[in-house]
Amino acid sequence: MKPLEYPEPVKHLILQLKQLPGIGPKSAERITVWLLRDRAESVMQSIAQSLMLADQEVGECGVCGFFATSTGCAICDRSGRDSSVLCVVEQATDILPLEKSGAFQGYYHSLRGRISPLENVGPADIRIDALMSRLRQGAFAEVILALNSDVEGEATANYLMELMAPLGIHVTRLAQGLPAGGGLESADELTLLRALEGRRSM
Amino acid sequence: MKPLEYPEPVKHLILQLKQLPGIGPKSAERITVWLLRDRAESVMQSIAQSLMLADQEVGECGVCGFFATSTGCAICDRSGRDSSVLCVVEQATDILPLEKSGAFQGYYHSLRGRISPLENVGPADIRIDALMSRLRQGAFAEVILALNSDVEGEATANYLMELMAPLGIHVTRLAQGLPAGGGLESADELTLLRALEGRRSM
Repeated sequence: MKPLEYPEPVKHLILQLKQLPGIGPKSAERITVWLLRDRAESVMQSIAQSLMLADQEVGECGVCGFFATSTGCAICDRSGRDSSVLCVVEQATDILPLEKSGAFQGYYHSLRGRISPLENVGPADIRIDALMSRLRQGAFAEVILALNSDVEGEATANYLMELMAPLGIHVTRLAQGLPAGGGLESADELTLLRALEGRRSM
Repeated sequence: MKPLEYPEPVKHLILQLKQLPGIGPKSAERITVWLLRDRAESVMQSIAQSLMLADQEVGECGVCGFFATSTGCAICDRSGRDSSVLCVVEQATDILPLEKSGAFQGYYHSLRGRISPLENVGPADIRIDALMSRLRQGAFAEVILALNSDVEGEATANYLMELMAPLGIHVTRLAQGLPAGGGLESADELTLLRALEGRRSM
């Protein structure tokens, strides 16, 4: 006797959801069952519509890499930004927290990833050409590399540093050290090493 | 200056995904960004289509409560099942693991939940009427209550037990005890109590 299975459309939806980041087989099944049970509010229809709307309307800004719509890019189109500083981030989502900090008023360049040989991501895959051509136009006096402080982030930063050296632009990196409110007892050795190396006189 | 935000369709998709069970604001944002980045495979379109297909084609079997399509219910329509035993479960997803165990060949009745005053779920909300009318038709000699062994599951089982008493049907419950392969040192006190109470001669 063939074992009992979910109907095809249910299995198919579980498979589709399983490919999302952070969603395993169990979560995909739980979400599917929840969706099928709470039909009254037609959650499935509205999620499906949001997906299609986002797919149709949202693109990548050709200049900075942030999300853009047909009405333009909320960063590049905004007047009053500081056109002498460019902040390079790994991905578009890194831009919002930097904006929220209120400490940066310049322009952004999202790389769409970082160099990672293990994941087959090389320099050609992460919008470095676009970055270099922006810099060669000569308006930026400083480039801030706001990359993650893990191995791939460091490697990408070093690669960019070498590439930018001939341009004579001032290149800086985000400070590393204790997180705000973080105690010494919860900091790992590398963080403490960096915090010591980067110590400042009071 | 108005703070920078994602474009409307992006914000809307994040909001939609956030309502799914187990998906918090951070996960919803990560999934949205992942979807917008991996556009090439048109994952968004295929997820949207799966959602709409499941919404249109999948319903609840009016008899057992398992997922059914226009071609019928994979449980109720299948010949060769044991029509003398009915297994009552809390939700449709509990049916597959019981089927996989291979130990049950009878019919199922999914309650679509359990009695939970805290979540405003009363006896009228969980298909108990449908269960009783199935039992009154008189074909089942035994009812197995395969409910969870937590507080709500126990309460629902006790409620059903009282309700079924006048029908004179043999009502059983799943055994409680040590899980297969589980050691005594990792079992909690209540599990050990139940395992002792339910001990069997060898």
